[in-house]
Amino acid sequence: MIGRLNHVAIAVSDIEAAAAVYRNTLGAEVSDKVAQPDHGVSTVFINLPNTKIELLEPLGPDSPIAKFLEKNPSGGIHHLCYEVEDIRAARDKLVAEGARVLGDGEPKIGAHGKPVLFLHPKDFCGTLTELEEA
Amino acid sequence: MIGRLNHVAIAVSDIEAAAAVYRNTLGAEVSDKVAQPDHGVSTVFINLPNTKIELLEPLGPDSPIAKFLEKNPSGGIHHLCYEVEDIRAARDKLVAEGARVLGDGEPKIGAHGKPVLFLHPKDFCGTLTELEEA
Repeated sequence: MIGRLNHVAIAVSDIEAAAAVYRNTLGAEVSDKVAQPDHGVSTVFINLPNTKIELLEPLGPDSPIAKFLEKNPSGGIHHLCYEVEDIRAARDKLVAEGARVLGDGEPKIGAHGKPVLFLHPKDFCGTLTELEEA
Repeated sequence: MIGRLNHVAIAVSDIEAAAAVYRNTLGAEVSDKVAQPDHGVSTVFINLPNTKIELLEPLGPDSPIAKFLEKNPSGGIHHLCYEVEDIRAARDKLVAEGARVLGDGEPKIGAHGKPVLFLHPKDFCGTLTELEEA
């Protein structure tokens, strides 16, 4: 069911500093910072030959990554995102298998403009797991 | 400098259960379990079209992932591994930039039979970062 690893998301408190680490120290191709007010984050993408790292910085007072950064002040890996062909079919299969979908279970339009769902970390090896319809 | 994302490593306390989640619930291609006594872990690879997920389970009393699992009993993402062309050149550049290489700074032969180094998480966005000579 799952296809490509679309991205690994890393939450950080200072996205310019994190982008500089990837650009200068690790020598990677790094995008500009983009505010995503609908998602409560700003994003920078690290474009690797086979996938992306998505840097996330809190935007606004109710950012969904604020609590994560309170617990992990140096930053840390926040979630993995896998591509699926049909997100509703994927969701129905997962729910039938007993996995928990976060929120109301309906796909939302994610930061890349495509339908996404998040799955409960405790059902997936302690890993917050996003599915994106590719 | 960094190239492909070689793998995302997820530490788990029960690798058979974790492999079943990826094989059955997420419908991915999952390798057999391999004991890696030199590294204190057993591994299972989830083969995605563009990269791999490496499941890690402690092997033996001094496993390098034992403390991580004490802190994260449900499991969790343990490290990211990027490919580099020349690991000693990469190390020298990183050290010159002020980044900390773990251990004695000399590449070791990793679980894939290739030279690897680990970088200090606090220098890389709270992310334990492995470099592997591709």
